[in-house]
Amino acid sequence: MKTAIAAALLVTAAPALAQQSITSLPPPVITEPAVAALRDDALANDHYAWDIAEGLTTEVGQRLAATDAEARARDWALKRLTAMGFANVHVEPFTMPVWTRGAESAEVVSPFPQRMAITALGYSGSTPPQGVTGEIVYFESLDALRAAPDAAVRGKIVFIDHHMMPAQDGSGYGQFGAPRRQGPTVASLKGALAIVIRSIGTDHHRNPHTGVQYFTDGATPIPAGALSIPDAEQLVRILKRGQPVTMRLTLVSQKIQGGHSGNVIAEVRGRDPKAPILLVGGHLDSWDLGTGAIDDASGVAIVTAAAKHIMDAGRPLRTIRIVWFGAEEPGGFGGAAYAKVHGTERYAIAGESDFGADRVWRFSSQLMKSDPAAYARLTAALAPLGITKNDKGEADGTDVEATIAAGAPWISLNQDGTRYFDWHHTPDDTLDKIDPAQLRQNVAAWTAALAVLSGGIEPGAKQPKRR
Amino acid sequence: MKTAIAAALLVTAAPALAQQSITSLPPPVITEPAVAALRDDALANDHYAWDIAEGLTTEVGQRLAATDAEARARDWALKRLTAMGFANVHVEPFTMPVWTRGAESAEVVSPFPQRMAITALGYSGSTPPQGVTGEIVYFESLDALRAAPDAAVRGKIVFIDHHMMPAQDGSGYGQFGAPRRQGPTVASLKGALAIVIRSIGTDHHRNPHTGVQYFTDGATPIPAGALSIPDAEQLVRILKRGQPVTMRLTLVSQKIQGGHSGNVIAEVRGRDPKAPILLVGGHLDSWDLGTGAIDDASGVAIVTAAAKHIMDAGRPLRTIRIVWFGAEEPGGFGGAAYAKVHGTERYAIAGESDFGADRVWRFSSQLMKSDPAAYARLTAALAPLGITKNDKGEADGTDVEATIAAGAPWISLNQDGTRYFDWHHTPDDTLDKIDPAQLRQNVAAWTAALAVLSGGIEPGAKQPKRR
Repeated sequence: MKTAIAAALLVTAAPALAQQSITSLPPPVITEPAVAALRDDALANDHYAWDIAEGLTTEVGQRLAATDAEARARDWALKRLTAMGFANVHVEPFTMPVWTRGAESAEVVSPFPQRMAITALGYSGSTPPQGVTGEIVYFESLDALRAAPDAAVRGKIVFIDHHMMPAQDGSGYGQFGAPRRQGPTVASLKGALAIVIRSIGTDHHRNPHTGVQYFTDGATPIPAGALSIPDAEQLVRILKRGQPVTMRLTLVSQKIQGGHSGNVIAEVRGRDPKAPILLVGGHLDSWDLGTGAIDDASGVAIVTAAAKHIMDAGRPLRTIRIVWFGAEEPGGFGGAAYAKVHGTERYAIAGESDFGADRVWRFSSQLMKSDPAAYARLTAALAPLGITKNDKGEADGTDVEATIAAGAPWISLNQDGTRYFDWHHTPDDTLDKIDPAQLRQNVAAWTAALAVLSGGIEPGAKQPKRR
Repeated sequence: MKTAIAAALLVTAAPALAQQSITSLPPPVITEPAVAALRDDALANDHYAWDIAEGLTTEVGQRLAATDAEARARDWALKRLTAMGFANVHVEPFTMPVWTRGAESAEVVSPFPQRMAITALGYSGSTPPQGVTGEIVYFESLDALRAAPDAAVRGKIVFIDHHMMPAQDGSGYGQFGAPRRQGPTVASLKGALAIVIRSIGTDHHRNPHTGVQYFTDGATPIPAGALSIPDAEQLVRILKRGQPVTMRLTLVSQKIQGGHSGNVIAEVRGRDPKAPILLVGGHLDSWDLGTGAIDDASGVAIVTAAAKHIMDAGRPLRTIRIVWFGAEEPGGFGGAAYAKVHGTERYAIAGESDFGADRVWRFSSQLMKSDPAAYARLTAALAPLGITKNDKGEADGTDVEATIAAGAPWISLNQDGTRYFDWHHTPDDTLDKIDPAQLRQNVAAWTAALAVLSGGIEPGAKQPKRR
């Protein structure tokens, strides 16, 4: 028994020592030359994605959900998608609560007076214009706060620390994002005056990371902000001196019901209108601090460019539907609104790009089980881009989540997230963070995936190549 | 003749092919074991520099010249230098005009409304609280602005671009800093409403770089600000669309005469009070946006730590004088005030550390000519730290400049400036930018230099090792 296990481990750890016979390999899978050519052309020459990301971030800038800026972004999208030659370009509107930011500042009043860089979290409560002042109480984690007696927190400004580190798969965001997502509610329920967290990020710049949180369990909204990481580290150093630390916090914000947002939809019409649809998307809205270049102008740019490359080549059997979702950041309102209307349509695949603009390094798909032949063709078509298959992958993405929950088969093209949380939700999310070469690799990957799953592209009267 | 030149080039380009005979080499120079031991101990174990930089940036934070914050920094310095056991610790006060920053914002009003990250330059004129609004007029350089007719500029907001790149020796700062230093005056003399420049920096973060400028030639002060580099690039993209671009600019500031600053001075008393002094310094003040960790808490920390290592070892023949200069940033007021009082004293050497906290990679000194034997000993003592001699080097440093002009022989330990202008004069100048290992290398270099030039250290009743 022990020997059998050791032998099995040996195979896993050092396959070269116990190599699989080539006669037992599955049949070879060769990417169709037309698919490979489309992919390689996108990798070398794509400009559609850069043009969209550059245009949207330059001509609109930030696109906070349900604001005038997001409305201007929808107008921009309609114009651009129409100019690119897509079909059925339209907006599907919905309403939602809109939260907007006002004046923001933080300063240590004592023992060492100094200003700190802060920004409010989404749906934060508002301070009065003159701010609030309170003593800081330190917690090394959300759990430490949860374990604290209410008396230790009541009337104070809670500060939650954490130690998120960069990871290629972004895996720290779930665990280390807890102070942002649940911290404000826990602090409020314990009677805190306000809460500040160390930004959920991996950089060392004075640009705080915003992001959404909700007050649940009947918690009263309290002011909730994120300090930049250098400021959070500074606050820790100040606290370590052992004297009481007092902070003045101004986080003015406003929440209004009945804001207007919407999803922008466009299609490459398939030859068979009854065939299941290929659904690809990203989100049009952004946080208000940067221009939302990597979150998520790049995402809408990538999937749209890929669809455009298919359209340039001819007519796919299946319809490709592109959705530029509205209001993802405050909680996936666009994805939910889309699924409510379209969730029960028939999909061949559903996927989104919403993790920056760095290269795709891995993919996974439900097709591994439901259509192994298609999965093998995807694997073969993506491998030349350096993309490995991940048999243990899971569905991913806020916007397509509800549609997937309603039954659509999923595909995830995982982008390298090593740098992503350096800029995520900060003023630094700007165009210069997009690497054009890696952006093209993303377009090539989505182009290959759409080509493989298109049901075949029939060359015909081509669309004008350039908008 | 041609052949002779070619042969000379060959020697320069490929010395291995025409190697110098070892019999013609100058006599060998061996570093005294005591000097090497001091240097290597500092490299491995110094904590004084980190403690000073950490303490000053944490317990005081920003230290804008002639403000209460700089006064707190002087108090902190007196306490720390006294606790470390230095002699003759005192402040030498002076007065100067004090400039302070108020509310700051910039937004493109049309054609693509969006906010931009901006900060005022030192001694900028002030806008009214509600700001000013004007059309942007683009110039690719200061010279392009100088060549423009007044009519192209009058009543408009001048924008000057540039293309500074990182360099190890920081050599871009002179040339590419011109838009900041002279741009506001040129724009004002041509009747501009205001001026914004691309920050003089090499990063891509939304943190603008401030810095000093003066209005000369009778120019009326106008509002003068620096856009962060991503914002400057965004403005260029917007301008390239070809439509008129309107900006609203709020840069409130205040200038008052008769502000109080001062130099903090401390000494390691030499055995011979009449021997020429070793003068080392850095500056205590900082800009107000960051905590001035690399500019210049690290500088005062490095030279002070080095002097402390000499003091720990015993008593040097020559007095070492440490100066934490006040008000360097707004124009070297501390250095000028020091030279006025002390410029005519006798110095063995004068040098400062004011280019960050990254490693020393090269040094130069006037001793090359005035005391070649000492120069050779410095060369030998610094080489094991990876420091090369630069026979073509020049005196460097705002604070010791006036004293050097008055006759003191100079030494320059050049720090690697590749990363320096990523953070220089921005909110990002914070403690996390100091690499403790490189900081220790700086301390080791200055310790070695002081030990070589000390005239000999006599072991004796040592100071308490730790403050």
